Amino acid sequence: MAAPDEAPPHPARRRDQLDKLCLFDDHWSPRIAPELNDSYVKLLKVKGELLWHRHPEEDEMFLVLRGRLTIRMRDGEDVHLAERGIFVVPRGTEHMPVANEEAQVLLVEKKTTVSTWDVEVEGTGPNPWV
Amino acid sequence: MAAPDEAPPHPARRRDQLDKLCLFDDHWSPRIAPELNDSYVKLLKVKGELLWHRHPEEDEMFLVLRGRLTIRMRDGEDVHLAERGIFVVPRGTEHMPVANEEAQVLLVEKKTTVSTWDVEVEGTGPNPWV
Repeated sequence: MAAPDEAPPHPARRRDQLDKLCLFDDHWSPRIAPELNDSYVKLLKVKGELLWHRHPEEDEMFLVLRGRLTIRMRDGEDVHLAERGIFVVPRGTEHMPVANEEAQVLLVEKKTTVSTWDVEVEGTGPNPWV
Repeated sequence: MAAPDEAPPHPARRRDQLDKLCLFDDHWSPRIAPELNDSYVKLLKVKGELLWHRHPEEDEMFLVLRGRLTIRMRDGEDVHLAERGIFVVPRGTEHMPVANEEAQVLLVEKKTTVSTWDVEVEGTGPNPWV
């Protein structure tokens, strides 16, 4: 389920979005900031492992803002990203992000991309705007 | 004119793309690395001023990987981005990127987005893959 395609109730989305990482602390809970054509730019804090999952129809971009992130690939080598590291998980590719220590990550996903945790937990809503 | 929608002739596009910034030095000449759904992720080195321009139909994302970037907005305040700074120029918004010192920038643009320099210089081809 994609997030609602409305602007957040403040003009901050038109400024530097990085500051918004200070506004939340929970892990594996992406915040939308901002929209980008038919995609959302999402800010995410991660620690530990997520789950093996894939997005059958959509590529997903990861960019590490702080810390380090490993993206395990079921059918290939792990991808190790340091700060500023960039990787696009091709559509249909089973993957699992892992961070031993907290990392701050930027995602770019299509608005139609269903996050793993939406699949795992029935009734989970869309990612909120930050 | 959009870049050709083909993979580059090497598998590196599936690894960390950041290393590719070492492969070129020219300014204001984006390299595609990699594709992302109907968009391209582009790596760019900038120094000095570009030109006032707009993309009538498409939002454009800037993320500063190294250095500092100012995005002048014809109808609003300048946006000053430090390292990791993120900003999306809304479609139709006249803007001009400026960097006093060399900066390294990541762009996410739709494949259909026409770069300013393509407009300025007739016959200029699409951005190459790096």
